[in-house]
Amino acid sequence: MHELDKLFKSAKKSYDAENNPLDALLKISKHCLKKLSNETTTRRQGNIGTKQYWVYESGDGISRPYLKSLFISSESNFTRRWKLLIANINADGHKIDSTENEIDAVLYTASMAFSICYDIWKSTSRKTPGTYLEVLLGSIMGKILSDYQRTKHIPLPIESQDENDESVSTDIVFEKTNDNGEIFGLVIPVKITTRERIVQPFAHQRILDSVFGFNRFHSILICISEMQLDKKNNKVNEICVPGTVRLFQKYLSILSGIYYLDPPTRYLQKDVTDIIKVGSVGKMLNAILPEIL
Amino acid sequence: MHELDKLFKSAKKSYDAENNPLDALLKISKHCLKKLSNETTTRRQGNIGTKQYWVYESGDGISRPYLKSLFISSESNFTRRWKLLIANINADGHKIDSTENEIDAVLYTASMAFSICYDIWKSTSRKTPGTYLEVLLGSIMGKILSDYQRTKHIPLPIESQDENDESVSTDIVFEKTNDNGEIFGLVIPVKITTRERIVQPFAHQRILDSVFGFNRFHSILICISEMQLDKKNNKVNEICVPGTVRLFQKYLSILSGIYYLDPPTRYLQKDVTDIIKVGSVGKMLNAILPEIL
Repeated sequence: MHELDKLFKSAKKSYDAENNPLDALLKISKHCLKKLSNETTTRRQGNIGTKQYWVYESGDGISRPYLKSLFISSESNFTRRWKLLIANINADGHKIDSTENEIDAVLYTASMAFSICYDIWKSTSRKTPGTYLEVLLGSIMGKILSDYQRTKHIPLPIESQDENDESVSTDIVFEKTNDNGEIFGLVIPVKITTRERIVQPFAHQRILDSVFGFNRFHSILICISEMQLDKKNNKVNEICVPGTVRLFQKYLSILSGIYYLDPPTRYLQKDVTDIIKVGSVGKMLNAILPEIL
Repeated sequence: MHELDKLFKSAKKSYDAENNPLDALLKISKHCLKKLSNETTTRRQGNIGTKQYWVYESGDGISRPYLKSLFISSESNFTRRWKLLIANINADGHKIDSTENEIDAVLYTASMAFSICYDIWKSTSRKTPGTYLEVLLGSIMGKILSDYQRTKHIPLPIESQDENDESVSTDIVFEKTNDNGEIFGLVIPVKITTRERIVQPFAHQRILDSVFGFNRFHSILICISEMQLDKKNNKVNEICVPGTVRLFQKYLSILSGIYYLDPPTRYLQKDVTDIIKVGSVGKMLNAILPEIL
């Protein structure tokens, strides 16, 4: 894991210096897939409906569950498809010209392969997989939105001299300045799963609405899935809170959408989608994003 | 710990059946203080300014840090002062007629003695101390607000027939119905420390404002402290986010106040208190509560 740590630190450093380190990210994925293929076994952990979830194991280490049908376990296969995906980035159109499922499969594999390695061999570094997901999506979207400025903070207008500087901070912001010198853009909280943190993106959007008025900033929440390993009962759980999501969207603020690499079936049902747009990251990146901008 | 578990389960059951099990809570505190006095040692862990924080230890078990000057370690002393506090509850005046510091000391000891026992002897039950704090404060305030109905949910008006029932759920709600049949009252999120969950009370208040209009429900956040044990560096930390609190109060919603049994010094400084009321639980219960109602 020392090698993987080193690779990630280097990619993160480049990302923080406002680059989109796609080559470094490919190197990381290849390293993870090779390590998984050489040093682990896999087995089926459980189903959610017809979706099969498997886990990787090595010694005492067990990974989070992954959706077998979406995960590209072969390093060479993944490398080819990653390169094709990058080649299909259409910066003028603000989208990726690959199919929805292809985008989901490649990004799901890249993020999950990394998380799985940390689960098995460095489970104490609990925050690293989330940071990696942020770097991955920030870099891919940085290529797609190359005419935007990527940042993490939206400074709020200072009301008086005494006041301390205030800002809304989130995982990824893509912003531009309009002819009036006003900043506008896209706010992208990125979570592996949401749990009780689902409130944060709604609260942030509400604050931005309060400060800047509606229509200056739009939030899209991006997640991997809502899957959880249930070790005790040897199965998998999908934790959804449709009532809470509806409540927040109706009464707290309006998110432009919630997009998953592996969307929970529950959130695709009518009582949720009548209130809030929910879909796959693939669909967002190949069709919806240009409409939001 | 089997005995303490049993005592707590019984108190919780009575609380959930809409009672205020004050005798059972005293029994729990006595049990904890006796156990701590017989089976542990104590030592100073660190200071925050002039405030000394100590820990209890037993074998490999170490407790969260507690404020030495506020903690009543003697079982007999605590019992006498608890009984006096209960006798001083003034239900007509909606307050407790004890001094601010006396209220803080008794409630701080009751909540911390329980948490400390769980830290040392049952650290896997991570949620139990929070539940206990809820039962403790809900019972004490239930006696003070005996003309209110205690609940955990505020049902939202149903807009159409298709819609599922929706409600805002929090730790403690005290509600009444006015002459127009409208529910109003006090929403009381209770947290041991806030961390990233500080957003929740503001979000809930915002939803209540959106649904019911302003002035129907008021939120007060009650916490023990913002202290954290720093095992690695063998010291104590006080984690405060004054910028975030100011931001939420200004742009998300307005809390009636944040009250701590052990208030962090940082939150008592002018740049925070100019924006939001922060104080001790003792002050809230002996002076401020009647004004909020």
